[in-house]
Amino acid sequence: MNVPDGDAARLWSDVEALGCIGAGADGGVTRLAWTPALREASAWLARRCESLGLATTLDAAGNVVAVWGEGEAPRVTVGSHIDTVRCGGRFDGALGVLCGLEAIALLREDGHLPRRPIALVAWMDEEGSRFATPTFGSRAFAGHDLAELSDRLDADGVALPDAMAAWERPFDALADAAGLERTTAYLELHVEQGRILERADLDAGVVTAICGLLGLRVRFHGRADHAGATPMDDRRDALLAAARAIVAVEAWASAGPPELRATVGTVEARPGSFNVIPGEAAISIDVRVASDADLARAEAELRALAAAVAAAGGVEHEVAVVHALAPVPMDATMTDLLERTAAAAGAATTRLPSGAGHDAMHLAPHVPTGMLFVPSRDGISHNPREHTDPAACQLGARVLADALRELSAA
Amino acid sequence: MNVPDGDAARLWSDVEALGCIGAGADGGVTRLAWTPALREASAWLARRCESLGLATTLDAAGNVVAVWGEGEAPRVTVGSHIDTVRCGGRFDGALGVLCGLEAIALLREDGHLPRRPIALVAWMDEEGSRFATPTFGSRAFAGHDLAELSDRLDADGVALPDAMAAWERPFDALADAAGLERTTAYLELHVEQGRILERADLDAGVVTAICGLLGLRVRFHGRADHAGATPMDDRRDALLAAARAIVAVEAWASAGPPELRATVGTVEARPGSFNVIPGEAAISIDVRVASDADLARAEAELRALAAAVAAAGGVEHEVAVVHALAPVPMDATMTDLLERTAAAAGAATTRLPSGAGHDAMHLAPHVPTGMLFVPSRDGISHNPREHTDPAACQLGARVLADALRELSAA
Repeated sequence: MNVPDGDAARLWSDVEALGCIGAGADGGVTRLAWTPALREASAWLARRCESLGLATTLDAAGNVVAVWGEGEAPRVTVGSHIDTVRCGGRFDGALGVLCGLEAIALLREDGHLPRRPIALVAWMDEEGSRFATPTFGSRAFAGHDLAELSDRLDADGVALPDAMAAWERPFDALADAAGLERTTAYLELHVEQGRILERADLDAGVVTAICGLLGLRVRFHGRADHAGATPMDDRRDALLAAARAIVAVEAWASAGPPELRATVGTVEARPGSFNVIPGEAAISIDVRVASDADLARAEAELRALAAAVAAAGGVEHEVAVVHALAPVPMDATMTDLLERTAAAAGAATTRLPSGAGHDAMHLAPHVPTGMLFVPSRDGISHNPREHTDPAACQLGARVLADALRELSAA
Repeated sequence: MNVPDGDAARLWSDVEALGCIGAGADGGVTRLAWTPALREASAWLARRCESLGLATTLDAAGNVVAVWGEGEAPRVTVGSHIDTVRCGGRFDGALGVLCGLEAIALLREDGHLPRRPIALVAWMDEEGSRFATPTFGSRAFAGHDLAELSDRLDADGVALPDAMAAWERPFDALADAAGLERTTAYLELHVEQGRILERADLDAGVVTAICGLLGLRVRFHGRADHAGATPMDDRRDALLAAARAIVAVEAWASAGPPELRATVGTVEARPGSFNVIPGEAAISIDVRVASDADLARAEAELRALAAAVAAAGGVEHEVAVVHALAPVPMDATMTDLLERTAAAAGAATTRLPSGAGHDAMHLAPHVPTGMLFVPSRDGISHNPREHTDPAACQLGARVLADALRELSAA
């Protein structure tokens, strides 16, 4: 780990202060969309921004937007989110916002005068944990039509528009949050949520693309039979087929490129009795790919894999595509910029894809976008045990500052 | 299929008449323990027995006992059960009782005069579907202490003793059902509940043993991680280990002796999310073995299998024995008798173990016991589609009759 420039204490103090808002007795942080805890965090952030002289507003989608610099020129934007999952940690999202804040503080200390305004944004509801509305704020900012979300209810039956009304943000005014025209570039720092940087003892990672996502559900239909009365060679065991598929999916992904990942996270067998051969079984397959071509190939190869397993086991099967999202490449100029500024700051980096989705994926199709990852201790995220070393946090802020300096000087 | 002796119409008429009692609109038969439907079936059976001149009683455990012949000499006993699972078929259990009844009718027509009394028994609650009390009647008959069952409740919260009281059978008087001292031999005919006889185009099977039963639960403990952010070579996937175990268990059983069966009927993965690598997974393993040695070997080999799979996947594991029941061999003299009388009746037979448990397993340790299987169409049981050909039913009754003739003449 390199020793960072600047004053790591200020950023770390912010991490600790923000981490206290919504903190539970279990050590977990819970700041769900449109709740008092998130409102308190947004107000805290606004005060911190205003103390640096930034003009701060809460936009129509609940995004905190803080601007340094005058004029109507499109802004160089940096940000992430400050909402969390239930019982989450202090770093996922929050660190990106606080590193952006620290970067602006560093630039001010350096005497930098931005020719283009710099905007710091904390996106509303990246996690989507309350209303199943992930990346809500960045989607609204990118001009997506979110009208279909009007009937979303939380676990207590509260409708999304009513939750927004409590923040005096009318659901019908969401279009006012559209902000791409005011944006010239976007940078986001985020914790890796994996162990690649930690394992390689790297300070940061420059994201090449947000991986494409393929979600499949595969069902196998065999024959339920008596476990005692049915010889091994006279079975059509749906769970056995599912198990072979799980093993084959892992082997398939392991033989692919390093950025390919495939996960079977759910399985069910019916009737689900100790002494009955399962007649029905189903699995999910979550696949992450780095290119459009890989997305198409993954679906074709996994369909063939499922068919082969089913045929070998004498069972029927069906494959359903639950979701398919194309990969979102980061902008090459921004990637180069982050890599160069990181190197100049003495950071050891690598390029890597992001297996997880981020707000950046909604800006990247429209404005030059780059993402910087900092290490996650033991890869833990969405958990109170999330941790990133203070020096790595500060180094991330330094890299953001140097990149923002160049972008805002153009 | 051979053409049977005797009048197949009478037995088939009984199958149809008994099958109407407890029949639902879906075609399924439901006669649970201590219910009005089972009481009606017991009363119907008693009337049929009395019409043949048998002295018929309902014993302290709810078993229907019908005796042909006088005196206190131990009885040659034949029987099975007339309770069913929910939405079951007309053959599982019922056919054994009705073939015993038909066998007695055939012997009376033949002018046979038993020197030993012959008893026909319909055992209470073989299935155990209402109170989780399988083979209740035969256990009481075999003198087992059933006091621990006094607090069993059905799905509606009715206690077993209260359900018995509705039949005027006090729970505290269960010991009065003990009947081994009055029994010199036991025969039971049952549907195979498998496809071995049907596949080989055989008329009947002579059971060599009721298989031993080993029930294991294996849990794997890995590490829950982000499906997108965790490379394939940095995972400790508990479900992958479970899947490898399922595949390995099947291969292990398939490589064993033909009577060995192993089934994974249940599986669970946690947290059970599409995009989270399962940190925990559990499977059940149901094993049927033909000998005590095989029972011990199965446990040892499956423990080793689970350990190997866990080690290969970098996960922890634990194995729990849920139940272990030793195999119950049938009596060699009775097996020979059934095989000989079957051959004399022109039936093509084989010897085979019973993978399922039966009432016979509680009598076999104490009195010479034999079991005869007749074919199950497509191996279906515990289902309205259960079916056995009328000619096969009649041939089974003929074999029982000839065996009872020898046993009651001794």
